[in-house]
Formats: sequence, structure tokens, C-alpha cells
Amino acid sequence: MAVYTHLGAEDMAALLAPYGLGDLVSAKGIAEGVSNSNWLIETAGDHPGETVRFILTMYEFRIEIEDLPYFLGLLDHLAARGCPVPRSIHDREGALYREVDTPRGRKALALIEFLPGVSLGEPTAAQARAVGAALAGLHGAAADYAPTRANAMGLAEWQRLAQACGEEGLTSIDPALGTLVAQHLPRLAREWPEGLPTGVIHADLFPDNVLMQGDTVTGLIDFYFACNDIIAYDLAVTHAAWCFDASGQTFRPDLSKALLEGYEAVRPLAAAERAALPVLAQGAAMRFAMSRAFDWLNTPADALVTRKDPMAFARRLEFYADPANAGVFAA
Amino acid sequence: MAVYTHLGAEDMAALLAPYGLGDLVSAKGIAEGVSNSNWLIETAGDHPGETVRFILTMYEFRIEIEDLPYFLGLLDHLAARGCPVPRSIHDREGALYREVDTPRGRKALALIEFLPGVSLGEPTAAQARAVGAALAGLHGAAADYAPTRANAMGLAEWQRLAQACGEEGLTSIDPALGTLVAQHLPRLAREWPEGLPTGVIHADLFPDNVLMQGDTVTGLIDFYFACNDIIAYDLAVTHAAWCFDASGQTFRPDLSKALLEGYEAVRPLAAAERAALPVLAQGAAMRFAMSRAFDWLNTPADALVTRKDPMAFARRLEFYADPANAGVFAA
Repeated sequence: MAVYTHLGAEDMAALLAPYGLGDLVSAKGIAEGVSNSNWLIETAGDHPGETVRFILTMYEFRIEIEDLPYFLGLLDHLAARGCPVPRSIHDREGALYREVDTPRGRKALALIEFLPGVSLGEPTAAQARAVGAALAGLHGAAADYAPTRANAMGLAEWQRLAQACGEEGLTSIDPALGTLVAQHLPRLAREWPEGLPTGVIHADLFPDNVLMQGDTVTGLIDFYFACNDIIAYDLAVTHAAWCFDASGQTFRPDLSKALLEGYEAVRPLAAAERAALPVLAQGAAMRFAMSRAFDWLNTPADALVTRKDPMAFARRLEFYADPANAGVFAA
Repeated sequence: MAVYTHLGAEDMAALLAPYGLGDLVSAKGIAEGVSNSNWLIETAGDHPGETVRFILTMYEFRIEIEDLPYFLGLLDHLAARGCPVPRSIHDREGALYREVDTPRGRKALALIEFLPGVSLGEPTAAQARAVGAALAGLHGAAADYAPTRANAMGLAEWQRLAQACGEEGLTSIDPALGTLVAQHLPRLAREWPEGLPTGVIHADLFPDNVLMQGDTVTGLIDFYFACNDIIAYDLAVTHAAWCFDASGQTFRPDLSKALLEGYEAVRPLAAAERAALPVLAQGAAMRFAMSRAFDWLNTPADALVTRKDPMAFARRLEFYADPANAGVFAA
């Protein structure tokens, strides 16, 4: 979490000129995002007394510029259908993003509406319910979004990451991790469901990526893993992200029940989707265990980014795979 | 530049409760400050439709809690006299700061008014003039501020830092640095002026610590080096910070002239102050060269903080010490 590119006021004003948002009033680098730099910016707007607030994102790593139209177009599509997502702000010529030269090379940048709300550390059941409903709303509103993007973090990628870590690498993180992956990953590949409804999914709806005020969801943010995949898998990811403590050691049945109820109040699950949730949730846990394991082994000691513990999701994987917990997703 | 302490919405709401500022609307960790964590926060305020914006600072390193009343009281004192500095926001019981327990131990925190404006990368002469005037305004407004604080970054500290680096350490940074310090530091100690007017000084008025809109100074910020010392030394620090390019290789006479004129339009220098400016400016350059050299040698490779080049101020020291440049501070 850092601002990777330093921008003085003059640089910032030059970057913003093509947007016609008025004079720069304030710009604060914000400590969000691991693959991009973000500034919370205020400009004077077009009318006296008006001010405009927005986030400027400069894409630094990982994100492919070719994917930006999918991500940013999705925001506009969802916002137009009443989802609590930030609109992208287009430049005077209607472009969703711009490319600029910086001291650190050519970068893409985009402007995105500022939304109020805060990210929760300890959600309540009422808040988990609201998040479930917002996720279902997103799935419904995205049904007629035409562009598509494959899930770059799907099963094939978990296999690639597991192989890249190697059994030795996984075991060096935790003696149990190598065994767990060997036990579950081939089985997940065999059992991965086919024929379930697919559509646009957020694929990373952790509490960090949900802004709330009280029990109201005011913002679903950070769509940079969004893709087309099994819709119920997104619910499984959100379940894994919301219904445990951070270490993955404590399951919270109250949050689980509320999240699922909130989701189904807006988009009832088909029987096949519900039946697939246990394996989808194991897949979700495997996905974050593998990406974290890879980052764990490959993050240089001097990185600005804090490594996240892969075992927190290995524990969730064990939880979801345990037949004693089969009732979690029962109707 | 980082946020060292993670705070969820619930933690944040609990920290803010004693201030009575209404419900939390937004909280963004901002990438400012090397010895503290900062959040830009918005709350609902007391009245419908109102919102309140402020900075929450959590003091992480270096700053002594005993010094907070001096720093925060100074903000209130200066703001009450019309200086563009942020007021501190007191809790319901009138306290300037609070101490709280966090997962990273007991910390002090304070709330400070949010001010608009942006920090300049490439100031113009008109902007340097405005900064000079604002600095002189600060010196005047602080004249009746009763609390005092010794300059912890004064000449004795430069000597201590130089000794801690050692000639070998200084030379390892740059072959010229050890020689330069040996040549100038003892002389500065001998020639350091006595009897000049003293008062409250900011002592660190770099462009980063000045918010501007156009040619107007909207905020002087980051008073955590403020202390009582020679007033003209503060002008020398500001001169060293504003009148060169970042590398210290290019002196900007237009900015120098404007800064000094802007200062004197508000607080004319006594003849003795003007005569002392060359040696005061050498001291200012030595101060930053020494603190940067020490940090350079003592910043772990995995630190979140970017090391700043000591040579940028060693070059300023050479510039100020060169008799060919004596005219810079001539009346």
C-alpha cells in the first residue's frame, strides 16, 4: 500500500487538464492499492462554489492496459443500473483512461468517482446481509454487460502457482500446506462444477473492497479482478472473505447465514448452484492460499507490500472440505 | 510515507467518539508523514447536511508526547492570529491530544483541521514570494506564544550526527562528504551567530509542508520540528529548501530574490540578521546534509521510507560557503 509515483502539483494539474474539472484544490496520496498509486483529489469544478472529488488511479503493476476498458466500462454499466459502484470520469473526448509519460515510464491513469463509506474490520450480521444483497445486485445488473474477460485467477492459475511454489516451497511456509495442496488441488480440478450459470463476477469482494455507512453498502470498489466466470463462485469468494476471522481459525455462522440470506433475497440460488457451493468455496480458499503462497515466496524483503499469510486461507480450505461443515451451505 | 497502524472502521469510530464529530463518513489513510500515520477523515458533523473534514495523526516514532502541547498549541495560537495553519480539534473535554492503546502499543493521536491546497514541485517566483510572506507572518504571530521548546536539530545535533556517521561513513556516501564536513562543521561552530533575535521557528518549511492554491498559501503544515531558535535561521532553512532544484545543483536566483522580498515585505530583517544569512544558510544546509547522511547509513534496506540524498544539501552547503555567491543575501 503505497504511492509509487511522486507527482507535484504542476504534474497533477497537467494530468487533469484534459478532464476539464477545474483548478486543483487538494490532492492527497492515499495508502490503498498494491498494484497502483491512488490520489484523493478535489478540484474546483465548473461552477462557483462547486467542488468535485474523485480518485486518480495510476496503474503501476500487474494490470494490463488492454483490460482497462472492461474494468472501467463495467463501473459505468453498474452505476447506471443503480449499483453502489463509482463511475469512471471520462476526459473531454470521452476516453475512459489516458496514457501518460512519467519519470517511471509510460503509465495509464483513470479518474473514478469518490464514494463515501468506510471498510469494516468486524462486520455484523446486518452488514454481511447487506453485502450479500449488494453482490447479488451486482450479478443481476451485470447480466447485460457485453464485454467479457477470462478469469486469470481461475483453476489453471492455482495449479500454475502451486507448481511454481513447489512442494518444498509450500512446506517451507508451513509443513501442512504442501500436504493440503497435494490432497485437495487435483480433487478440485476433477470435481470443479460445469454447467452452472456464468456472468460477470467481482472475484475479490473482501471487506477492504466494500465501503459502508452503518448497515448500508455505499461502495463496491476495486474491480481489477472482475471477469466472467461461475456466478456462484463469486458468492463463495465473498463467503470465504467475510465469514471467518482474519486468521481463518474462527468461522462465524451468523455472518454466513446473513450473507447467504441477503444474497438470496435479491438473487435466489438455483439448486445446482447451492449444491456446488461447498466445492466452489474450497476453490475460493485454494485461490487465495495459492496466490498468497506465491507472493510469500516471491516478495522481496524490501518490498513496500506486507505479505499476507497463506495459512489463513489454507485453514478455510480445511474448514470447507470437512464433511462436518457440509451444513453451512444447506438450504 | 506510509500508514503504520491498520485501523478498521470500528476502531476508527471508537477513536473519534470522544470528539463528538458525528458518524464516520469516510476515512482514507494518506501517504504523508514519515514518523506518523495520517488519515483524511470525514464525519457527519452535528447538523443535517453538514460534513466535517480533518486529518487524524497517530504519532508512531520520534515525536515525544511531551512536545505535543507545544506543537498543537502553536497551531491554535497561529490560526487565531490569521496564519494559514490548521487548527487542532480538541476532544469534548478540551484535550489537544489523546493516548490510546493499539495493537502496536500505546500511541498518541491528534485531530487537525483539513486545509485545501497542494504542494508545489516547481514553484514560481510569485509563489516563493508568497511563501516568504507567510513565513514572516508566522514569525510575527508567534511572538507572543509563551511555551518554548529547544531546537533538537541544532548545531550540537549536527555535530553528534556527524560523529555518529564517522568520517568513514560520510565518505562511503560520497568521497566529498567527509572532507566537506571536516572543512565546514568546526568553522560553523566557531562562527555561529549570537545575539540575533530568537523566537518560534517552523524549521522545516520545505515545499512539501506548504499547501498552495495558485499563488496563495493556504496551509503551512507539519510543525513537528518547530522550536525556539534564531528567527533568521528559519528564513535560511526555507531558502535552502525552495531556491534550488531537488539535486541542489541549480540555484534559482529568481526564487531567492522573491522569497527574501516576500519575507521582508512583512518582517524587514535587521542588518545583523541579513549579515548572518550566509552562515545561517550554511548551517541549514549542514543540518539537512547531516540528518540525511545519518538516515542514509541507518535506514534498513526493507524500510518503508525512501532515503533522501545527503549530497543534495552538501551541494547547497558548498554554494552558500562559496564567496562568489556572497551577493545572494546582499540587501
